[in-house]
Amino acid sequence: MTNKKEIFASIIVIGNEILSGRTQDTNTSTLSKWLNSLGIKIQEVRTIPDIEKNIIDTVNELRKKYKYVFTTGGIGPTHDDITASSISKAFNLKYGPHKEAMAILKKYYKPGEFNEGRKKMAYMPTVANLILNPTSGAPGFNVENVFCLPGVPSILKSMLSGITHKLVGGNPILSHTINLRTVESEIAKSLSDVQDKNKEVDIGSYPFFRAGKLGVAIVLRSTKQNNIDKCNSEIIKFVKKKKIQIDERD
Amino acid sequence: MTNKKEIFASIIVIGNEILSGRTQDTNTSTLSKWLNSLGIKIQEVRTIPDIEKNIIDTVNELRKKYKYVFTTGGIGPTHDDITASSISKAFNLKYGPHKEAMAILKKYYKPGEFNEGRKKMAYMPTVANLILNPTSGAPGFNVENVFCLPGVPSILKSMLSGITHKLVGGNPILSHTINLRTVESEIAKSLSDVQDKNKEVDIGSYPFFRAGKLGVAIVLRSTKQNNIDKCNSEIIKFVKKKKIQIDERD
Repeated sequence: MTNKKEIFASIIVIGNEILSGRTQDTNTSTLSKWLNSLGIKIQEVRTIPDIEKNIIDTVNELRKKYKYVFTTGGIGPTHDDITASSISKAFNLKYGPHKEAMAILKKYYKPGEFNEGRKKMAYMPTVANLILNPTSGAPGFNVENVFCLPGVPSILKSMLSGITHKLVGGNPILSHTINLRTVESEIAKSLSDVQDKNKEVDIGSYPFFRAGKLGVAIVLRSTKQNNIDKCNSEIIKFVKKKKIQIDERD
Repeated sequence: MTNKKEIFASIIVIGNEILSGRTQDTNTSTLSKWLNSLGIKIQEVRTIPDIEKNIIDTVNELRKKYKYVFTTGGIGPTHDDITASSISKAFNLKYGPHKEAMAILKKYYKPGEFNEGRKKMAYMPTVANLILNPTSGAPGFNVENVFCLPGVPSILKSMLSGITHKLVGGNPILSHTINLRTVESEIAKSLSDVQDKNKEVDIGSYPFFRAGKLGVAIVLRSTKQNNIDKCNSEIIKFVKKKKIQIDERD
């Protein structure tokens, strides 16, 4: 189903709190949806601990493999925020106070409030490009194809519009969902036949439980609407033949 | 902070629906919490698409790197469920109908209902050990140190108690949380000093917004309660000195 025109990216979720199960990651879903709309497909997500070597190795592996890499987490003021220094090492760049970031933060805080912890948030690869933060001052940054964002979901979201112009996307990835009141095993064979005849569409099948009833969501994804439409008709055809109820609510 | 007695594991989340942002993964958090209680620490999570080569490569890389590997997703009856066949290839084992799984499913379904799609759920490495599924019949399986579980969260949860006896854990990982009414930059320096003096405790710092107020959750994690207690006293000491309010609700 790989399309030559597709643009692939990956996400590195940095943080012990995700690995321990304490915090539920929601940034992957936020980033994926936003990137889908730009025609960029997340092909891999790695969740790793706050350990320098792991960050350096993962960044260096993935930045060669994918057109874009997004990191989340680890750019705050505390001792466990080591993303900026690790990225500097990964790229072999000087880590230090970033002039522009320092100016932004100095302006953001009241005189006397710009303490050591806050200054640390301006430390990064000194040649990085900033990603402005309209919510809480401290900027993210990018070096080459690696974009470093914070872990706090609301702050991350507020920063995305500041990156859009830096990304070269493909055709937006369109999707269509058909919700059926059935179970997967009743439609597996017919669905497989449709997939075989429609290689340009990714057909996913996901069981759900809703309002006490079982169902299956069939998700069609492609960059071309007519491919989705063709696939959709073929599915509707076998669904009607099998007398399966379509759930129109979604 | 790495402890020689620690036992590390990884999770491979298999599924386009997670990468596209359509479905929010919650299995990582479920597995992590359950494994913490057994003294097993998730050190890495990889989320990858339903592509055979990616599954084979990731499984073969991680099963050498970690004591246990857990996969979620891709063991249902439809065309996009390719985990079982990919695992067979990764281990170079015969993929086919598993005798015991076939017997379980035959018994589970009414005569005449055991169709092709349902039979597919008994296809796996023929020598695999089954992981019983009390919720919906179709078993998971394990080969060596790789445990393959379904993607549906409620079914996955119901299967964990059937694996516990197969895992050799370490000391359970204990944790203690201190919620403070402050911001990270106010405590960053003091917290860093405590971390430097307490290498056996993982100290995490996570900002939160709750009931309209800002706060920071300090999470202490260690296999030893007395290490956590010592760390806790040192933190409470500087917190009181700085006149920071402690939030007792959590």
